[in-house]
Amino acid sequence: MIELKLKQISSIINQIIENSLYGTDILYKAAFHLPSHGGKRLRPFLVIKSCELVGGNIEVALPAATAIELLHNFTLVHDDIMDNDILRRGVPTVHTLWGIPMGILAGDLLFAKAFQLLLSSPHVNYERLIKAAKIMADATITISEGQSLDMIFEKRMDVTEEEYLTMVYKKTGALFKASAEIGGLIGGGDENAIKLLGEYGSNIGIGFQIFDDYLGLFSKEEILGKPIGNDIREGKKTLIVIKALSSPIRDYLLKILGKKDISNQEIYELIDEIKQQGIDEYVLNKAKSYINIAINSIIEFPESEAKKDLIELAKYAISRIK
Amino acid sequence: MIELKLKQISSIINQIIENSLYGTDILYKAAFHLPSHGGKRLRPFLVIKSCELVGGNIEVALPAATAIELLHNFTLVHDDIMDNDILRRGVPTVHTLWGIPMGILAGDLLFAKAFQLLLSSPHVNYERLIKAAKIMADATITISEGQSLDMIFEKRMDVTEEEYLTMVYKKTGALFKASAEIGGLIGGGDENAIKLLGEYGSNIGIGFQIFDDYLGLFSKEEILGKPIGNDIREGKKTLIVIKALSSPIRDYLLKILGKKDISNQEIYELIDEIKQQGIDEYVLNKAKSYINIAINSIIEFPESEAKKDLIELAKYAISRIK
Repeated sequence: MIELKLKQISSIINQIIENSLYGTDILYKAAFHLPSHGGKRLRPFLVIKSCELVGGNIEVALPAATAIELLHNFTLVHDDIMDNDILRRGVPTVHTLWGIPMGILAGDLLFAKAFQLLLSSPHVNYERLIKAAKIMADATITISEGQSLDMIFEKRMDVTEEEYLTMVYKKTGALFKASAEIGGLIGGGDENAIKLLGEYGSNIGIGFQIFDDYLGLFSKEEILGKPIGNDIREGKKTLIVIKALSSPIRDYLLKILGKKDISNQEIYELIDEIKQQGIDEYVLNKAKSYINIAINSIIEFPESEAKKDLIELAKYAISRIK
Repeated sequence: MIELKLKQISSIINQIIENSLYGTDILYKAAFHLPSHGGKRLRPFLVIKSCELVGGNIEVALPAATAIELLHNFTLVHDDIMDNDILRRGVPTVHTLWGIPMGILAGDLLFAKAFQLLLSSPHVNYERLIKAAKIMADATITISEGQSLDMIFEKRMDVTEEEYLTMVYKKTGALFKASAEIGGLIGGGDENAIKLLGEYGSNIGIGFQIFDDYLGLFSKEEILGKPIGNDIREGKKTLIVIKALSSPIRDYLLKILGKKDISNQEIYELIDEIKQQGIDEYVLNKAKSYINIAINSIIEFPESEAKKDLIELAKYAISRIK
């Protein structure tokens, strides 16, 4: 059900993205590459449903929803360069196809297009639109801080669960939070509604990212569109890794963590060990707890289709297969 | 006189930049590196003087002026990665000190901070502020297109003067134009005033960039803060190069253009040849003609201190030594 609704929203958002990035030259081709190859469009869905939850309609939220998706894609394009990732969504990453300089520039263009689109939202009160744009700028700053932490953590072996959660809030939670708040703002919500939507967004974002790290190890390459165990090869301090580092399998993990040339066999062995330690269960429960907080944040809103969709979205964040 | 005024504005802008980028972690240090090592602050000056020209005061223009400078620094940080430049303003470039991933991220942070600052401008009418932010987003898109052309031109030997001028407008003119327009908007100028300021800005920007390319070959490394002839080593199609490619020294130039390891001796010989062909004069006159158009664009504004300063700024753009 939620997947059908996500698809419907996707097809509208995809059309706006295509119009926004239409161009025949290299720069526009490079910028359009990632957003044209799928993506779940969870964040635009969140913008739209948050807008509807407070009584707004989808039309006013569409530019903002698309802007958030472009912003998200900008961070992915740059992250892939920073992390040396060569595959995403089953296709080569932008810098793999067009080189690092064009990858950087394509990301920059997506970032600028995000602001251009948001600021062109028609029928939105000017004061609210400025607040929405400010939220988007603030979120981008937070995301940059999160990505910086993520990279710094690669070199550290003593990252705590608390530090991981801060990083994950910044890297992922902040944009989900911004999506929900911007939807609420554009939909005409009052201060309290926007605050609750923000709590919903940041918690769903954290739960989503914890589960995303889980899928990165426990899903399959053909479903995920990128190799299993990339996080291990890059030395990422996911919650799984952090828990494993304080378990009996610490020494085994330390031997392979951050090594670019780990074999699939070694990854599968690691997965078995992680399961035997019950770390997969721990991590899933952690993700679930954030999703429950998210759902509770919006529980007091009167019943509506949008509310049902947001609750479904929260559950989907930790039940999806990719 | 103009240099003293630029210094006064610089010290105010520098303080706001420092407040905005204060941070002890790597990301903030990397982001603060370039803007803390000088820069002429021509664009903030332009924002402020354009604001004053239409009757606004400096205080309302300061956040926007600083935002434009941060945006400019963002483009420089990313350009330096794309162009493999290791020195700027006499110090190592951001990615040279902190690596490409942190260089990309520092640029992204500067970009986001630019929007955050602009959108926090107090005492500005909301509608005008949205227009200003939209101009900044549009300009960033144009700058990305300009940088893309600049890179594509490196591989082409048949770039025309007209193509160069389009590239230079996009790469440099667009941000000068945006600076003047945003200053005019924030200062309360009417549509015609903003249009004239835009013409002033784009022409001063083109003249500035033509002269910048000239300095890149005819100034001195210790003044410029980067090696002489970088453009030649990178195969950049500056107006000097384009003219030289359609002159008797074409074959000589083709032998060294785009070669990373050209000696200083070879650069000096090239400079002599270029002078003998009168290309330096041609390029200087071209820059001057854009500066004259810029000055003429604002000639109808009533006399004022701000108008004098803008005329001085235009002249300074092609008389500076760095």
